[in-house]
Formats: sequence, C-alpha cells, structure tokens
Amino acid sequence: LFRESFLALHPTDQMELFLRLEKALQKQVLLFLSPQEFADLFQGFELEDQLTLFPELSYQYAVSMFNHMSADDVADFLAEIDKNKADDMLSAMDLEESKRVEELMAYAPKTAGAIMTKEFIRLAVTSTAKEVIEALRQTAPEAETIYYLYVVDANQHLVGVVSLRDLIVAAPSRTVEEMMSTKVVSVFENDDQEDVAHLIKEYDFLAVPVVTPDKRLVGIITVDDVIDVLEEEATEDFDDFAASRGATDLSLTAFAAARKRAPWLILLMFFGLLTANIIGRFEETLEQVVLLAAFMPLIMGTAGNTGTQSLAVAVRGLATGSFERSGVWKPIRRELGTGLLLGLICMVVLMVIISVFYQGNWTLAFIVGISLFVALSIAAVIGTIIPLIIDKFKIDPAVASGPFITTLNDIIGLLVYFTVATVLLGNIVM
Amino acid sequence: LFRESFLALHPTDQMELFLRLEKALQKQVLLFLSPQEFADLFQGFELEDQLTLFPELSYQYAVSMFNHMSADDVADFLAEIDKNKADDMLSAMDLEESKRVEELMAYAPKTAGAIMTKEFIRLAVTSTAKEVIEALRQTAPEAETIYYLYVVDANQHLVGVVSLRDLIVAAPSRTVEEMMSTKVVSVFENDDQEDVAHLIKEYDFLAVPVVTPDKRLVGIITVDDVIDVLEEEATEDFDDFAASRGATDLSLTAFAAARKRAPWLILLMFFGLLTANIIGRFEETLEQVVLLAAFMPLIMGTAGNTGTQSLAVAVRGLATGSFERSGVWKPIRRELGTGLLLGLICMVVLMVIISVFYQGNWTLAFIVGISLFVALSIAAVIGTIIPLIIDKFKIDPAVASGPFITTLNDIIGLLVYFTVATVLLGNIVM
Ligand SMILES: [Mg+2]
Ligand SMILES: [Mg+2]
Ligand SMILES: [Mg+2]
Ligand SMILES: [Mg+2]
Ligand SMILES: [Mg+2]
Ligand SMILES: [Mg+2]
Ligand SMILES: [Mg+2]
Ligand SMILES: [Mg+2]
Ligand SMILES: [Mg+2]
Ligand SMILES: [Mg+2]
Ligand SMILES: [Mg+2]
Ligand SMILES: [Mg+2]
Ligand SMILES: [Mg+2]
Repeated sequence: LFRESFLALHPTDQMELFLRLEKALQKQVLLFLSPQEFADLFQGFELEDQLTLFPELSYQYAVSMFNHMSADDVADFLAEIDKNKADDMLSAMDLEESKRVEELMAYAPKTAGAIMTKEFIRLAVTSTAKEVIEALRQTAPEAETIYYLYVVDANQHLVGVVSLRDLIVAAPSRTVEEMMSTKVVSVFENDDQEDVAHLIKEYDFLAVPVVTPDKRLVGIITVDDVIDVLEEEATEDFDDFAASRGATDLSLTAFAAARKRAPWLILLMFFGLLTANIIGRFEETLEQVVLLAAFMPLIMGTAGNTGTQSLAVAVRGLATGSFERSGVWKPIRRELGTGLLLGLICMVVLMVIISVFYQGNWTLAFIVGISLFVALSIAAVIGTIIPLIIDKFKIDPAVASGPFITTLNDIIGLLVYFTVATVLLGNIVM
Repeated sequence: LFRESFLALHPTDQMELFLRLEKALQKQVLLFLSPQEFADLFQGFELEDQLTLFPELSYQYAVSMFNHMSADDVADFLAEIDKNKADDMLSAMDLEESKRVEELMAYAPKTAGAIMTKEFIRLAVTSTAKEVIEALRQTAPEAETIYYLYVVDANQHLVGVVSLRDLIVAAPSRTVEEMMSTKVVSVFENDDQEDVAHLIKEYDFLAVPVVTPDKRLVGIITVDDVIDVLEEEATEDFDDFAASRGATDLSLTAFAAARKRAPWLILLMFFGLLTANIIGRFEETLEQVVLLAAFMPLIMGTAGNTGTQSLAVAVRGLATGSFERSGVWKPIRRELGTGLLLGLICMVVLMVIISVFYQGNWTLAFIVGISLFVALSIAAVIGTIIPLIIDKFKIDPAVASGPFITTLNDIIGLLVYFTVATVLLGNIVM
C-alpha cells in the first residue's frame, strides 16, 4: 500500500520524501523498492546524498541499481568513490552497460563528453515518418529525450536532425532524408561544458549532439543538464570572486571549510604584510602628520570597491559570453572612462567634505583627493584587465578573484597616497 | 538568391549575420524579408539591438511584424519603449493579438506571468491519442512547445498533462483522460520567476503551466526562458555583490555606468569617513606607536576577505535554494565555526611572522594577533547573517553586497584593533 502511493508520486517528490525520512525508515523503503525503482531516485540525488546512502545498499542491490541507471549518472557517481570499489562494481555490472560507463568516465571533467548521455535515438535516412513513429511507440524508449532524433549514416556519422515536432507535422509517407535538417549544430567531445551551455542557451535547443573530430555521433547533451552546468559555473565564479573555491558548499564541516579557505587568507595576509612594509617605509611622513593614517582605510576601501565593480563587469561578461561579440577593448575603454569619472566625482565630494569638517585643511584635502582620483582610475582598469588576462592564459582564475584584486588595489592605493603625501609635505607643512 | 540562402540558415545564425551587417545593408535585407520572416529574427534579438533597429522600421512593417511575433516577446519589447508609442502600436495590431499582449503587460516584472507565453496547446479529456496527433499534424502549430500538452476541463481549469512522448508511446485509441498525469505541477501567475526556475531545474521539466489562484490555465513557461532567468538572476546577484546594480551591462556608456555606480561609492565613502573619525579618536595611541598604522590594512583586509567568503556562501545558498532544505541555523553555525578556526590559524601564523620580522616585538604580535582572531570570527558571522536578514525582510539586497559588508567589517576590525592596542599599551610600553 505504501509502495503504490509512493511510486505514484513524481520522482522528484519521491526523492524529497525519501530524503526526509529517518535512516531506519529509509531502509524500510529500500526493502519495498526494487533496484530498478530505486535507480530513478538514486540518479536524481545530489552527490552528497548518494554518498551517504551508498554504504546502506547491499552489493547485489547496488550492482543491479547501477544497471538500471543512466550510464552518465553511474559514471558521475563512480568517479567520486574509491577507485577499487568502483572497478569492483563495474566488473559486476552488465557488460554493455559497464562499457558505456567506462567510456564516459574516460572524458576529462567539465567537457561535453563528461556531461553527455549515451541514451539517445538514432535514425537511418531511409525510414519514413510513419515507421519512425511506429518504432518509437514500440520500443518504449530508454532514451533521455525523444524530442530530437539524430540521423546517422552507415558509418555513424551525424548527417541530420529531425525533431519529433517535424515528425508529427509531416505526412506519414515522408522519409527521414526529406524531413531532416542537415544544418545540424553539434559540439565536440572535448569542448568546454560552459561553451555547450552557451550554445544551447543561444539557440534555445532542448539537446545538442556530441561528435568525434571526424563527425561520428557519440552522445547527446540535454537542456536539463545544461541548467545544472550553468548553476555550477555561476557558483564557481562566485567562489573565485570570494577566493573560497569549493567552500560555498554547505555540506562541508566548519573544519573542512576552514581548511579550504585558510590557504587563501594566509596568502592574502602575506600581501598585507607587504603593505605593512610599504607603510613602514613612509613612517617619517606618517610621524609628521598622524592624521594621514585616518584616511588610509577610505582610500583603500574606495579603490577596492571600484575595482570590485569593474571585476563584476569582467566576470559576468566572460561568463555570459558577451565579450566574444564586443571584443575586449570595448570593456577596457569603458571601464577606464568610468574609473576616471568616478575618481573625479569622489575627489570633488571628498575635498568639499574634508575642507568643511577638518577646518579648511586644504593640504590634507588635496592629498586625499588627488590620491583618490589616481587610485580609482587605476583600480577600475586593474579590475577589468586582470580577469581578461587570466582568461586568455587560462591560469587558475582564483588568483583574479575579488580579494586579490582588492589587495592589489590596496597596495597601489597606499603607494599613491603616501607618494603624493610625501611630495606635497616636502613643500608645504600643514 | 540572397533571400533564399539567408532564410535557409538557422534563425540564430540569421540573427548573428544580420547584426554584423552595416546599417545600409541591414536596410537592404529588411526590404527582402517580409514582416513575418523578420518577426522571428526580431524576437530573438537582445533588447538593445531591438531598440536600435526599431526606428528603422516603417510603421506598417512594425505593426505587421508584431502581429507575427509571440505575444510575450511583443509585451517585453513594448514595455521598454515610450508609453504613447506602445499604445499606438497596440491599437493598430490585430485585436486578438493585442489583447494577449496587453494581458501579459499587466503582470509585475519578474513574475511567472511576465515570462510566460500564451502560445501553447490545450487538450480536452475526451480526445484520443490518434485524434490529438492528427490535430497537431494539421494545425501546423504556433505553439512554443508541443512536447507538453496541458489538459483543461470546460471551465479552463488545469486537470492534467500529457507529454508528446506519452502520446507517441500510447495505443492510438487511448483517451487523453487515460493517458494524462493528474499530478501536474503548476505555478501561480504572481510567483517569483526565480522560484519557477528552481522548480524547472529540480524536476527537469521542459515547461511548466501557469494558473490563476482558482487553477485556470493562463499560460506556460518554457525551459529556454528559464535559462535566461537563471542567467539574469546570477548577473543580478553579481551586481549586488559588487554594489553596482545594473552597471555590469556592457552596453552602457562610461558616463551612464559612472552615474549608476557613483552613488554607491559615495555612500560607502561616508562610511570611510566614519572610519577616519574612529581612527582619529585613537590618535593618541597611534602617536605612541606609529607602527600600529602599518598593520591596519592587514587587519581590515583579512577580516574583509573572511567576510566576503562567508557572503559568497550565503548568496549562493540563497540563489540555489539550498537553505530552504537546511534551514538558516546550519550555515550560521558552520560559518561561526569556520570563522573561529580561521581566526585561530591566522593569529598563530601572524604572531610567528611578526615576532620574527619585527625583532621579537611580542606586544605588537600580541595586539595584531588577538585583534585578528576576534575580527575574523565576527566577520564570518556578519558575512552570513546580513544577507539572510536582508532576504527575510526583502530589503534592497544591494545593501548586503560585498562592499557594504567589507566596510562594516573594516570598521569593526579597526575598533577591535585599536581597543586591544589601547588596553595593552596602557599596561605595557613597547
Ligand atoms: Mg556526467
Ligand atoms: Mg569552465
Ligand atoms: Mg535562449
Ligand atoms: Mg541527462
Ligand atoms: Mg539529469
Ligand atoms: Mg567559469
Ligand atoms: Mg578592503
Ligand atoms: Mg515576457
Ligand atoms: Mg528575484
Ligand atoms: Mg535538474
Ligand atoms: Mg518562450
Ligand atoms: Mg524565447
Ligand atoms: Mg536573485
């Protein structure tokens, strides 16, 4: 009775219900469900939930479940567990299924090959619309989607695509060759998953075929997986932005998160020590006018904020692919212009405020104002250029993250500030 | 000849080609294309391109083009142009079409209603599979998708859903009532577009139906539009993170971008002045040991970076909906734990470094180390809690952005630092 009402639910709802159950109850449910039935649930779980559940399954149950899961989901999971254990599972699985899984596991992470599925429908050019519909009807299909049907020749080369929509609308006697579109957009196995996502987003596709360099069709990528890729990439950009790669994952313990984040903080702290050293060199200037120290945070903070704004422009431009259209010079010129304007505005505002609140201390106002103007202009350019360079040379993007750019701008800002101060104080004494 | 080869291209490629042409050539192409043919292109363009092109179109051409576009795309565009001009267009359009557009324009931005389409397929419960397929074939459909077919009763109440997949697989004589799933997941007109996007992502749907509070079916939202929503929301979060809402839009001129960003910078500068004021109060302490100033940037920077990392955790958790599952206390506890650990690690590292490089100046090492520990623990909690509070009270999220939290942490960090320094220096003299 529980079994029936449970299985009547949408798989996503089954998943949610299952995860909310107590451990003991989960075991009860497992006894009720066949490996095949549980396969649908298991492949929909997040990795962390899969890893928690896996040890609870018996060896036989797990093997049988893997046989019923999509090859791509099995590949994703097995890549995350102990290598020996994974090999063990693979050797116990059905040969055909385990071969598919191994093929998928061979691709580098975050490539088209790694996110594609092998469960899709191929058509021959000679079939008619009626035949294809009849075939679809009979082979209650295991395919991930039946809405796009890809057409291959005798050598498995991709030659066209027919949508189920075309098929339905077409006269029953028309052949695949007549119906198919031969201008089929495809991606290569080793293409970056982010490029695949942009392509699907641009063309509003529901799926895209994956081919080898010689155009053999090896898999397809569906839109639901592309949504997950876009979310994953956005999270990654956020992590980089905050120099905490991997640490936004909430399933980490405080200790694990600290371990991931500490290296970045300590590295940045060394830059902070460099800053301390720079300020130390200007100790004389500072002793002359202790009040100068009071405006250090303001200079640093404002330069930092400007740089962060420019960084956001660059990071989003790279992520949404809009720089591919505009080129890189347009954003750099724009940000330089914006930086100069912002510098000018902030300089004027600040000079007015300082000369009012600090009893017409014009020298101080002048030092802080000029420094702000120069520092902001530089900060805007640095915030834009560094991520672009990073992207060009494919260095670890975390070094272009917010904190690094902020720290760089801090150092430059302070150098500008103390240089201006030293020069001006050399002539005038406040 | 050009016409044929142009129209043979995929609409997305037509769009790209068209946008790359010189203005004069674009006009030539327009003469070749009928309003109906150009409608497909126009509705795919980004808003900025639409706005540039629109004045080039004759009044008659534009009206006819709007008649052939999807109602939702017309609504999106007309909402962006002059109100009188839009009304003028609407009154010239076909009555049925303009009514649809007006209905869509009535929804608040970023709701399900605002992103839905009215071009979808309704089925009656009594039709058979064969009849439905026949009907689809004949009415070469204007619908945005024919892969999900929604079933309504006589009062237009949503009662079920049939996928084209179910329809193909089913025996021709089965009725819609027999085939349909009655557990249909739907959204309300006024639901937030982000919630709709999460739903589609969770369930791997290709579309979701939109209903009135009394369950009347009024439209559907397709997965391609949901991808655009997710990108838009990610950009928005980035803008907020960097306190530059709207300014990551590259089409803005330097001047327009500066105008959007300057208010934030100036507001933040006032906080900087507050900081200057705080430091001013500790002038005596500072005069006693000028070297203290050298470590201000380090304290502020490290606290700022920790806060930014925690902020990234909170912002992503809110965006991906993972806090809905875990509750808010788990992330807060986690971040507090992480903050304490990070504070401890940084304190130890720094004390070692200072006592080595600053000739065993233990008092300095102690002041800086203790301040770092306290400041980091507070920063982690602030970085997590503030966005959660903001989200709870639906205040403008920009005030929870990176720069604001950094500035807040700067102030707290400096207060901690100078308080510790003043207390310790009151007892010991370095
Ligand atoms: Mg995979
Ligand atoms: Mg990538
Ligand atoms: Mg799109
Ligand atoms: Mg898939
Ligand atoms: Mg999937
Ligand atoms: Mg990326
Ligand atoms: Mg800072
Ligand atoms: Mg709309
Ligand atoms: Mg929103
Ligand atoms: Mg999904
Ligand atoms: Mg749409
Ligand atoms: Mg669309
Ligand atoms: Mg949002």
